[in-house]
Amino acid sequence: MIKSEKASPKDVIMEVYEFGENVLKKHHIKNIEDIRPFLEVSHKFWLNLCGLENEAVLKEISELFNIHPLTLEDIKNTSQRPKFEEFDDNIFVVTKMIYHKNKSHSPITEQVSILFGKNYIISIQENPYDIFDPIRTRLENPTGKMRKMGTDYFAYTLLDIIVDKYFDCLEFAVEKIESLEDQIISQSKKTKLPEIFNQRKVIQQIKRNVWPTRELLSAWKKSENPLVKKKTNPFINDVYEHVIEIIENLEIQRESISALVELFMSNLSLKQNEVMKTLTIIATIFIPLTFIAGVYGMNFQFMPELGWKYGYFFIWILFLGSTLAMVYYFKKKKWF
Amino acid sequence: MIKSEKASPKDVIMEVYEFGENVLKKHHIKNIEDIRPFLEVSHKFWLNLCGLENEAVLKEISELFNIHPLTLEDIKNTSQRPKFEEFDDNIFVVTKMIYHKNKSHSPITEQVSILFGKNYIISIQENPYDIFDPIRTRLENPTGKMRKMGTDYFAYTLLDIIVDKYFDCLEFAVEKIESLEDQIISQSKKTKLPEIFNQRKVIQQIKRNVWPTRELLSAWKKSENPLVKKKTNPFINDVYEHVIEIIENLEIQRESISALVELFMSNLSLKQNEVMKTLTIIATIFIPLTFIAGVYGMNFQFMPELGWKYGYFFIWILFLGSTLAMVYYFKKKKWF
Amino acid sequence: MIKSEKASPKDVIMEVYEFGENVLKKHHIKNIEDIRPFLEVSHKFWLNLCGLENEAVLKEISELFNIHPLTLEDIKNTSQRPKFEEFDDNIFVVTKMIYHKNKSHSPITEQVSILFGKNYIISIQENPYDIFDPIRTRLENPTGKMRKMGTDYFAYTLLDIIVDKYFDCLEFAVEKIESLEDQIISQSKKTKLPEIFNQRKVIQQIKRNVWPTRELLSAWKKSENPLVKKKTNPFINDVYEHVIEIIENLEIQRESISALVELFMSNLSLKQNEVMKTLTIIATIFIPLTFIAGVYGMNFQFMPELGWKYGYFFIWILFLGSTLAMVYYFKKKKWF
Amino acid sequence: MIKSEKASPKDVIMEVYEFGENVLKKHHIKNIEDIRPFLEVSHKFWLNLCGLENEAVLKEISELFNIHPLTLEDIKNTSQRPKFEEFDDNIFVVTKMIYHKNKSHSPITEQVSILFGKNYIISIQENPYDIFDPIRTRLENPTGKMRKMGTDYFAYTLLDIIVDKYFDCLEFAVEKIESLEDQIISQSKKTKLPEIFNQRKVIQQIKRNVWPTRELLSAWKKSENPLVKKKTNPFINDVYEHVIEIIENLEIQRESISALVELFMSNLSLKQNEVMKTLTIIATIFIPLTFIAGVYGMNFQFMPELGWKYGYFFIWILFLGSTLAMVYYFKKKKWF
Amino acid sequence: MIKSEKASPKDVIMEVYEFGENVLKKHHIKNIEDIRPFLEVSHKFWLNLCGLENEAVLKEISELFNIHPLTLEDIKNTSQRPKFEEFDDNIFVVTKMIYHKNKSHSPITEQVSILFGKNYIISIQENPYDIFDPIRTRLENPTGKMRKMGTDYFAYTLLDIIVDKYFDCLEFAVEKIESLEDQIISQSKKTKLPEIFNQRKVIQQIKRNVWPTRELLSAWKKSENPLVKKKTNPFINDVYEHVIEIIENLEIQRESISALVELFMSNLSLKQNEVMKTLTIIATIFIPLTFIAGVYGMNFQFMPELGWKYGYFFIWILFLGSTLAMVYYFKKKKWF
Ligand SMILES: [Mg+2]
Ligand SMILES: [Mg+2]
Ligand SMILES: [Mg+2]
Ligand SMILES: [Mg+2]
Ligand SMILES: [Mg+2]
Ligand SMILES: [Mg+2]
Ligand SMILES: [Mg+2]
Ligand SMILES: [Mg+2]
Ligand SMILES: [Mg+2]
Ligand SMILES: [Mg+2]
Ligand SMILES: [Mg+2]
Ligand SMILES: [Mg+2]
Ligand SMILES: [Mg+2]
Ligand SMILES: [Mg+2]
Ligand SMILES: [Mg+2]
Ligand SMILES: [Mg+2]
Ligand SMILES: [Mg+2]
Ligand SMILES: [Mg+2]
Ligand SMILES: [Mg+2]
Ligand SMILES: [Mg+2]
Ligand SMILES: [Mg+2]
Ligand SMILES: [Mg+2]
Ligand SMILES: [Mg+2]
Ligand SMILES: [Mg+2]
Ligand SMILES: [Mg+2]
Ligand SMILES: [Mg+2]
Ligand SMILES: [Mg+2]
Ligand SMILES: [Mg+2]
Ligand SMILES: [Mg+2]
Ligand SMILES: [Mg+2]
Ligand SMILES: [Mg+2]
Repeated sequence: MIKSEKASPKDVIMEVYEFGENVLKKHHIKNIEDIRPFLEVSHKFWLNLCGLENEAVLKEISELFNIHPLTLEDIKNTSQRPKFEEFDDNIFVVTKMIYHKNKSHSPITEQVSILFGKNYIISIQENPYDIFDPIRTRLENPTGKMRKMGTDYFAYTLLDIIVDKYFDCLEFAVEKIESLEDQIISQSKKTKLPEIFNQRKVIQQIKRNVWPTRELLSAWKKSENPLVKKKTNPFINDVYEHVIEIIENLEIQRESISALVELFMSNLSLKQNEVMKTLTIIATIFIPLTFIAGVYGMNFQFMPELGWKYGYFFIWILFLGSTLAMVYYFKKKKWF
Repeated sequence: MIKSEKASPKDVIMEVYEFGENVLKKHHIKNIEDIRPFLEVSHKFWLNLCGLENEAVLKEISELFNIHPLTLEDIKNTSQRPKFEEFDDNIFVVTKMIYHKNKSHSPITEQVSILFGKNYIISIQENPYDIFDPIRTRLENPTGKMRKMGTDYFAYTLLDIIVDKYFDCLEFAVEKIESLEDQIISQSKKTKLPEIFNQRKVIQQIKRNVWPTRELLSAWKKSENPLVKKKTNPFINDVYEHVIEIIENLEIQRESISALVELFMSNLSLKQNEVMKTLTIIATIFIPLTFIAGVYGMNFQFMPELGWKYGYFFIWILFLGSTLAMVYYFKKKKWF
Repeated sequence: MIKSEKASPKDVIMEVYEFGENVLKKHHIKNIEDIRPFLEVSHKFWLNLCGLENEAVLKEISELFNIHPLTLEDIKNTSQRPKFEEFDDNIFVVTKMIYHKNKSHSPITEQVSILFGKNYIISIQENPYDIFDPIRTRLENPTGKMRKMGTDYFAYTLLDIIVDKYFDCLEFAVEKIESLEDQIISQSKKTKLPEIFNQRKVIQQIKRNVWPTRELLSAWKKSENPLVKKKTNPFINDVYEHVIEIIENLEIQRESISALVELFMSNLSLKQNEVMKTLTIIATIFIPLTFIAGVYGMNFQFMPELGWKYGYFFIWILFLGSTLAMVYYFKKKKWF
Repeated sequence: MIKSEKASPKDVIMEVYEFGENVLKKHHIKNIEDIRPFLEVSHKFWLNLCGLENEAVLKEISELFNIHPLTLEDIKNTSQRPKFEEFDDNIFVVTKMIYHKNKSHSPITEQVSILFGKNYIISIQENPYDIFDPIRTRLENPTGKMRKMGTDYFAYTLLDIIVDKYFDCLEFAVEKIESLEDQIISQSKKTKLPEIFNQRKVIQQIKRNVWPTRELLSAWKKSENPLVKKKTNPFINDVYEHVIEIIENLEIQRESISALVELFMSNLSLKQNEVMKTLTIIATIFIPLTFIAGVYGMNFQFMPELGWKYGYFFIWILFLGSTLAMVYYFKKKKWF
Repeated sequence: MIKSEKASPKDVIMEVYEFGENVLKKHHIKNIEDIRPFLEVSHKFWLNLCGLENEAVLKEISELFNIHPLTLEDIKNTSQRPKFEEFDDNIFVVTKMIYHKNKSHSPITEQVSILFGKNYIISIQENPYDIFDPIRTRLENPTGKMRKMGTDYFAYTLLDIIVDKYFDCLEFAVEKIESLEDQIISQSKKTKLPEIFNQRKVIQQIKRNVWPTRELLSAWKKSENPLVKKKTNPFINDVYEHVIEIIENLEIQRESISALVELFMSNLSLKQNEVMKTLTIIATIFIPLTFIAGVYGMNFQFMPELGWKYGYFFIWILFLGSTLAMVYYFKKKKWF
């Protein structure tokens, strides 16, 4: 299997896969000029470029493939909204990979611009790490669709892998949300509201990219460009359905998170209620008793009760009777 | 009545009902190849298949009935969204059964893929248990519509039974919600918020499946496929209206649940208010009294009041007066 | 004036009004067969039928008037959504009467199915009591529109009365909501949250029926059926506008109820705040004083202050000073 | 300047302005029949009628101007929704004036029905007071557009003044909302939640009338009636833009009010927190001290500490130490 | 670089840039009449006018450029909604600059009306300070698009700079929101709710202007006016995409702020809970102990325990035992 090389992100890395029904060759390109010969051969090729810092390289590419200056800016502006744009001799697609490099962090969003023409597919990423290894593997299969079908099918497979990754990220978020839900229902003390809000942000991060992806696919489905073959249609429709499924799941998760916050807050209120009841029961029973004890602790010279033989005994009866009355009152109010 | 057999879910179970205006035969099939002869006869047949684990069987079916690989994947992917898809010589429908196997658990969602062509209906379920016994009974009636009308009417009856089951599940949820409402209004102590949130999830589970079912039926109504007979139209429209009714009821239940949560929380606040008032009344009356008692419990050598003849008597007047003043104050504030 | 008879709801009651520009006769029908002659005469007739329990009668009607089995089911299913449906020789309308039989209960919803053809109008109700007496009165006027215009105008008048009744029910709910608002603003103790939620349910009950009525009227307005005369158009449009007005008022009431709940809860918070402040002021002033009194109530043999001549005098200065300081502090914090 | 006369609201008041490029005459009409001659002259005239109680007058008008009975009912029904309706020889517009007769009360809504034909404009109000004086002034200008342009322009000016008044009412509400906001932010004690809710109602009152006014203008813009001149189009569009601006401002105010309620409630929570902290700090410091003082106030015969020389001194060290520890604890918890 | 002069805002300031592929001249104009010659030359010119107070100047301009009186009012009315309007020989665009003159204040909204015809662009601002210096710089570049392309391209660049400024303001708000979020998560005491609500207002201020800007651009894109060149289309589309991006970011910030308020309020509840627990634990432990101490501080003559040798010792065992029992109880309840 051919693997993608890592390099210092300051430089641009370029890999070129020349392929056809009987051919598969991987080339390492140093200069954009090295690509020109591929444009003339009868095979198709995939140029995968990583890194947006080198302005000169991007400029040369835009000249070689006749890219409009505004499109070049879209490629360089990594906050570009996903879109599908048709030009005279190629189609330009902006997409967003979302993946976890490290499961303990938030997922990373990386822009991937895809340009495909009659015999070329160009993918331009922000940095070398990508999720396209399955494509590199599938290319090696000489009887696979990748080698036989048009460049639009190739672009579809890139998008399909990106959308599948959305499912992974969503699933990972769902697991976290469900574990938070378990914590809240079991009233575990370690639940932290900011964690819940963090998952809300992840859901929003996916939603933010998946909604324009749906528009992108909708435009692709309706496109009548000759580069978009009729045979690829069912495949585009399939990714489109995946995107709809993700959107609906995101909505469900959004509602789950709202429910979690509500549940968390109501648990807090329930606990507060219990705390206040405990305080009130204790205070209501003992404060009057303490007052009575205080009364007979006064030092007045003339206090007849103090001299009674059963005074102390009577006072204990008063203490107990008052306590019982209070307990009965609280029982009737269903405070226990 | 012909009943569906249960088997180990690892295997695929297949029952074939051969039927026509004068015929009804049930066959037990072991190999997919055994189905081929039915395709040639003039009768219609229903193939009901349970179990998705055996890849080989599904592969054979997809070859026999000329199913697109993406459609085969939709059948296998049990999180596929309900949909209506037309092909050259058959129509593919994905639906979801929702039923209670055990009333004390949440309802179960099971995917049912339906494929119908000129003289065959195939239903593919996840596991053997199903809700289609009424269909098996209706098939036995030689003058019933099931035997006379086209395969689209047969597919409609499957869908109709599925949608009727949604009503059952919804009704069961409504009963639970209403009993929760009674509990909350009677301020019963056993109400648990997680139970309310559970019902919210059930409502969402139904909603999630019923919304795309509405789109499915809308597409079916508009379809101009020759397999969709004009005579079946009013029936499709009828299920469609049922689905709309379910959607509106779901919305009403969703609002009921929100109202319940609000009511639960406000009851909690009302109780908290009462607890705090009790504490405040007791504390406000007795804390000053205890202070006064404390004052005359001090051991200063020179405290003139202690020597007064009516000191103790006066102090009790002070105690009672202060209490009455407080009670009057609270009465005026309407705290009782 | 001709009045509707009451009967045991187990039986079906049928009244037939034969009418034309010069004719008005009321007939009591026992068998459906008795209706057949009316179909042939040149006059129009209104058949008003109450009671859905007698399956045989409904079956006979459906045969006499050529009603589709699914439509018959819509008539029997009292949770059918209001709708407008056109058939070859008649038009079928499902509507809902909402009325108060008893002002202290929630309003009652009763389904009324209306079927009108060239010279007949059939109205089928769940039970005998109805709100159609004004129609019976208007029929008696020989120069009124009821006698001159088509059956669609007759159906319109039925609908018009039903919609006018929605206004009555809404107005009754509004009065209750406004009285609840007055109670809450005057902070009356008798306000109960469940009463507010009850009004929310009434609003929802009306909304639930009025929304599909709007769709029904919208379909009627657009209908090009020959049974729908152009002259009736402005009348249909007028009911339509009433329905829009009801919908907007329902929305306003829904918001009022939300505001009421908010106001109720915030009043509760304001009261709780006041309770807590009272407790805190009393406790904060007296707890330290009680401590000081306690100190000089200790029985240590060596406590120099106890022997001072002005000890008791000084301690009172301490008590008063501390109290004044506290009062000043609370004043500054604006707690009074 | 010609001014509108006030009269007892029981009667109908009618003023007629006959006008043309060279003419302006004001007439006082007692009987509807007096209007008939104006219909024949070549000048245009404006009939302004105040009061809906006199059924006879309205009846006569409806006969004179050929008004449909349903339209007459719309005029009399003061809860009619604003609308634009075209008839064979005139156009009927229902609008709502909203104005403050007294700044300390809520604004008043008054229905104004406008009917305009080839050479007449009729405005029908509920009662004599109106906001049309600027129109009376503009009419006096012989070179103004009012005198030259068609009746649709005249109707536009009426509507324009009505919409401008919405701005005034909105502005007045905004001022109140802003002063409530200042009160809440400065935590003034006089803020009352019902006042906030009152402003919400005013916003809703305007919104309720301005939304259908938008539909009305939208219909007017699209109208192809010969009475609607192309030259008036930019003016209608201008009012339409004002209405959109009002709608957007209403939405902003609605959100401001929600924010105010939130702010009010959270201020309440903040205060409650402070109250509780004060109580807790005082109680937590003094309750244990009071206990210790209580211990040494016990009268046991054998209590060795009481005889110690420095017992009293040590106890004060204990008091101070415990207090300091508590203060340190609260400091660490950031309660101060 | 040519810079904009500042002047007293009472006066109108006018700068005229005459430009073409080979020409760039800046003129200072005192009277509107001085502009007339530019209208005849073959070059294009940009008239930038600051100040709306001088009615006479605006009147003269409207006559010179044939501006409709309603459009003139739109220019003067600084609360005009952004819009795109086509006239016979020019196009009128209303936009809003939003910028920070001082970072510690809220951003300022200033209306900029743009009118462009075949060879002129007029921009009319409220006051002299603007954000158009980059345009003045770009004009100096003789090979730049500004000099070569049509007046619609010039108008686009004005709009582009305005939209870019929205990003700056949004970013500034986002920074503040994020710092508020950090404060809330770290539970810093200095967080003030009014600051959060202030940022909500800024978000709303941008949203309010950016939504109609989207409509404006949408109208521009669809315009078939000859002044709108096909070559400018991709540029308009580019600004349109920026506007969509801003709208989505505003929505995200709106949700962030809601989450912040929720987080703030729940932190408050958590703190309150902790405060109440502290109070309850201390009070529940010491109040009963103080009562017991009070009992043995009573002065009854007959109290046998007082004479016991180990009475005092036993009482301490009771104190400690009771305390331990309470602590155990709280531990079990997980209050620590
Ligand atoms: Mg979105
Ligand atoms: Mg899906
Ligand atoms: Mg959805
Ligand atoms: Mg949803
Ligand atoms: Mg959604
Ligand atoms: Mg919700
Ligand atoms: Mg949905
Ligand atoms: Mg329904
Ligand atoms: Mg609905
Ligand atoms: Mg609804
Ligand atoms: Mg709703
Ligand atoms: Mg809904
Ligand atoms: Mg609705
Ligand atoms: Mg209305
Ligand atoms: Mg509405
Ligand atoms: Mg509404
Ligand atoms: Mg509304
Ligand atoms: Mg609201
Ligand atoms: Mg709500
Ligand atoms: Mg509305
Ligand atoms: Mg506006
Ligand atoms: Mg708006
Ligand atoms: Mg709005
Ligand atoms: Mg809005
Ligand atoms: Mg909003
Ligand atoms: Mg908006
Ligand atoms: Mg975007
Ligand atoms: Mg958006
Ligand atoms: Mg969004
Ligand atoms: Mg949005
Ligand atoms: Mg939200």
